[in-house]
Amino acid sequence: MIAFVIGVCTVLSLPFGSNGEAIPQKPTGDVSIMPPIKPADGPQAFPDAEKANMPVFTMDYPRIQLPFEITLWVLLASFAKIGFHVYHKITVWVPESCLLIAIGLMVGGIMHSVHEEPPAVLSSNVFFLYMLPPIVLDSGYFIPTRAFFENIGTVLWFAVVGTLWNSIGIGMSLFAICQIEAFGVQDINLQENLLFASIISAVDPVAVLSVFEDVSVNEQLYIVVFGECLFNDAVTVVLYNMFSYVADMPEVEPVDVFLGVARFFVVGLGGMGFGLLFGLVASFTTRFTGNVRAIEPLFIFMYSYLAYLVAELFAISSIMAIVTCAITMKYYVEENVSQRSCTTIRHVIKMLGSISETLIFFFLGVVTITTEHEWNWGYIMFTLLFAFLWRGLGVLVLTQIINPFRTIPFNMKDQFGLSYGGLRGAISFALAYTLPDNIGRRQLFITATICIIIFTVFIQGISIRPLIELINVRRTNRNLDTINSEIHCRVMEHTLSGIEDLCGQWSHYYWKDKFMKFNNLVLRKILIKDKRAESSIVALYKKLELQNAMEILDTYDTSRTTRTCRTSRVQSSSGSGY
Amino acid sequence: MIAFVIGVCTVLSLPFGSNGEAIPQKPTGDVSIMPPIKPADGPQAFPDAEKANMPVFTMDYPRIQLPFEITLWVLLASFAKIGFHVYHKITVWVPESCLLIAIGLMVGGIMHSVHEEPPAVLSSNVFFLYMLPPIVLDSGYFIPTRAFFENIGTVLWFAVVGTLWNSIGIGMSLFAICQIEAFGVQDINLQENLLFASIISAVDPVAVLSVFEDVSVNEQLYIVVFGECLFNDAVTVVLYNMFSYVADMPEVEPVDVFLGVARFFVVGLGGMGFGLLFGLVASFTTRFTGNVRAIEPLFIFMYSYLAYLVAELFAISSIMAIVTCAITMKYYVEENVSQRSCTTIRHVIKMLGSISETLIFFFLGVVTITTEHEWNWGYIMFTLLFAFLWRGLGVLVLTQIINPFRTIPFNMKDQFGLSYGGLRGAISFALAYTLPDNIGRRQLFITATICIIIFTVFIQGISIRPLIELINVRRTNRNLDTINSEIHCRVMEHTLSGIEDLCGQWSHYYWKDKFMKFNNLVLRKILIKDKRAESSIVALYKKLELQNAMEILDTYDTSRTTRTCRTSRVQSSSGSGY
Repeated sequence: MIAFVIGVCTVLSLPFGSNGEAIPQKPTGDVSIMPPIKPADGPQAFPDAEKANMPVFTMDYPRIQLPFEITLWVLLASFAKIGFHVYHKITVWVPESCLLIAIGLMVGGIMHSVHEEPPAVLSSNVFFLYMLPPIVLDSGYFIPTRAFFENIGTVLWFAVVGTLWNSIGIGMSLFAICQIEAFGVQDINLQENLLFASIISAVDPVAVLSVFEDVSVNEQLYIVVFGECLFNDAVTVVLYNMFSYVADMPEVEPVDVFLGVARFFVVGLGGMGFGLLFGLVASFTTRFTGNVRAIEPLFIFMYSYLAYLVAELFAISSIMAIVTCAITMKYYVEENVSQRSCTTIRHVIKMLGSISETLIFFFLGVVTITTEHEWNWGYIMFTLLFAFLWRGLGVLVLTQIINPFRTIPFNMKDQFGLSYGGLRGAISFALAYTLPDNIGRRQLFITATICIIIFTVFIQGISIRPLIELINVRRTNRNLDTINSEIHCRVMEHTLSGIEDLCGQWSHYYWKDKFMKFNNLVLRKILIKDKRAESSIVALYKKLELQNAMEILDTYDTSRTTRTCRTSRVQSSSGSGY
Repeated sequence: MIAFVIGVCTVLSLPFGSNGEAIPQKPTGDVSIMPPIKPADGPQAFPDAEKANMPVFTMDYPRIQLPFEITLWVLLASFAKIGFHVYHKITVWVPESCLLIAIGLMVGGIMHSVHEEPPAVLSSNVFFLYMLPPIVLDSGYFIPTRAFFENIGTVLWFAVVGTLWNSIGIGMSLFAICQIEAFGVQDINLQENLLFASIISAVDPVAVLSVFEDVSVNEQLYIVVFGECLFNDAVTVVLYNMFSYVADMPEVEPVDVFLGVARFFVVGLGGMGFGLLFGLVASFTTRFTGNVRAIEPLFIFMYSYLAYLVAELFAISSIMAIVTCAITMKYYVEENVSQRSCTTIRHVIKMLGSISETLIFFFLGVVTITTEHEWNWGYIMFTLLFAFLWRGLGVLVLTQIINPFRTIPFNMKDQFGLSYGGLRGAISFALAYTLPDNIGRRQLFITATICIIIFTVFIQGISIRPLIELINVRRTNRNLDTINSEIHCRVMEHTLSGIEDLCGQWSHYYWKDKFMKFNNLVLRKILIKDKRAESSIVALYKKLELQNAMEILDTYDTSRTTRTCRTSRVQSSSGSGY
């Protein structure tokens, strides 16, 4: 398989090289909104050739370069993914991200040896506008809603305070290290250290999550890591923006600190606001798509993306916006759209998220080789050390503070899982590349970031599974969906909210009860085609029935004949069915 | 609804205008493969501002302009589509394309009145590389395979010979008209007339097909119009390329004519070859995607697109390539992939095709207003007349020739349907815009093309339904899928191929029989995971069973509770399910 992938790579890298001379004459960025209308069809490509006979073959590579190369990269990444899973045993022990980085390193090596420019897919704009949204949408859309809202306090605590803790802790410590003359990094000032620390504070536990899933750790631990990963990206981007602004300043005035804090809230709450708005509008729109089932899923993608872009426009947290949008609309949209649209929405979101992630890890490997590095043993080693140290310390301290407020407190083993799961990933990488050129040690920061990503992904990523199994972290009490448990859960929730009402204490049961009432009385009436509020017990019954039906379908599906698809041929081939 | 759409438009057109001064400084085509890595995050947008406090709000429109505007246009088009279908009665009598052009005209009027540049989405490259592939893939993937192969001779006859007939006929006649001094178009030479005629020979009977479907005309008529629409695009593009090359030549030598004919075959058969190749590779790839269901559909899209792009690269018929690719892989891919992937593939293809088409008609309306026109009564009226005349004549003559070879010959009513269904559409429009600037009367050709599109879409498009119903075209013998009919069909086919073998006559039964044997013995073994060849009767039985199951699902679906989606939440939210 690897030989095959390398083969594809060589083919892939050819177009870059062999057309090196053809590309500069013709700008390729043709997708821009207002290019001059220019004829570039076959024969026109050679208008200045002297009178020749009509050509039987012509070739015009620059014209198709952009979509062609994107398609090839996507295909290459997909092949890699297939390759890993054909040898299923590898991915059990080595996380996919490690394998992708490894393949990327090889491709990078090949490209480096033929003096090839790396593809600039990870330039700041391409990353933030095209590759990040699908990943975040994927996480936001498939977040286990109930578990998330039950642990939202802890999630935000770790995401916001934890990230601040890490950024400031690592930044300060590194600044202290910079004062030691022997390392030769005295020119890095405090602002730059803080900026760098904010970059490497974003944890990206994709690899960890899949391990957690496989060994089925308890739900509390899982959701906290999941939620932290989602929201600390947002916090990191804000911090990064703040610090990179501050890094330009000759001196920091007290008013700037105040404005920074204000901005922090504007960015976070603003993102949530936009997300909520677009989510509600999207839900409302799907009320009317009953006759245009074909384009139904498009609305979901467009509105989420719009939420993201508008947030980017105002430089508020686009990650918060798209996550909030996804969480808001999911419930209503899925009741409005058809079964098929629903499948499509879910599958496309998964697909785009998955391929974006694959590409990013892959490019991370490529760029690691093709970038010029500035190596500084002292600074990089201390970065690794401090990142590890402050993460562990942070989890320890923050857990002590949050534990008294939790129904099920985190024990020591959970805390180990939390702190050891702090892998760094794509966000750090992209932010490092976004660093402005006026930062003196930009090269060093990039090198250090790549080091910490590769170190955490490879060392921690590979070792976390055996460690988790060794220390025997509390496993999940996977709750089966049954009518019985649903009835009891509802009874308990009603009882608890009643008791809370009596003693005048308002916890999340109270708020959930209030929200459900508001939802049934107002939101559902506005946003859902069929307005009747429905008992969650009846809903669950129907859901289980359908689950049964789907399982029958899937049994057929995985058995000998996968003819299933043509089931709907009659309708859909006539164009109107879908 | 219309007021709403206009409202959105005003919002839409604002960004173009209000940022007119901001855009030029910063090039927007940032998707290009190798842009310099540039920091453009929030605060960096104002680096040259003098020392100010940390900004709490920032805004950076040029950075998100491209994806933002694309998203808005797509949303606007989708809204229009919803709008039409909310008032379902409109679309029964007025085809959707008419309504879209009308909305486009309005938006164009608004944009014109605020002196707005039209979006260059219909520049040659954007149209041919991004908007056309989804439409053609849609048609190719959902073509009724059996009916198509049973009528392939007639389809190709009308597509190839019919298009040639129209192009040459209209071109010659217009050249004759050009000799009349009174019209003032004597400067248009024969080559240019032929070039123009090739542009307006592509019929685009999307609107007609939906009418045919609604009144369920007979399958023969339907498939011939469907197939003609698919393949004559390919022929037109080739003719266009040839004539536009010829238009540059001072004189045409005999060798050029010969090379032209050679190129014609290279282009057509080359396209089919690439399509076949990519189709088989795609089928083969899906054998191994069992463990990566999430990205399965991606392969289908990527391979089809690759087939299209590679064909574009070598300037051979990309439409033939993507259609052949779709037809080839459909059968094998749908047996390999999971039920969910299959639904997703079909839905996404439909979705993208549908939205591309919507956008094109919409932009056609916009551009009609915002382009500068050159009006020439004589030339344009005669263009309309000749286009109508030669189409009618062509169908009449070509049917006389093909009828003796057909089992079910076309009667006069069918012929009326065929010739009246010759609406012009997007391809003509895009080709007209691709005309090189050195054509003296480029403006006139564009105006004439737009005229003929609008005339045929509005007049013929609206009147074809009453006419078809009035003359009572032969209706379909819609064959129901039953085990009984399948058994009898197979018996008949086997018998016929046996009889043909005996009398030494090889018609399509013989070839179908041969292909089925080859398919079962070789192709299925290579391309399909489960290698057992299966009786078509057993397959049909299973298909009907599953159809039942799906119907049960859909009944739930359209009934009160559309909770269905959450059916699979448990698996998919854990990330591994899909």
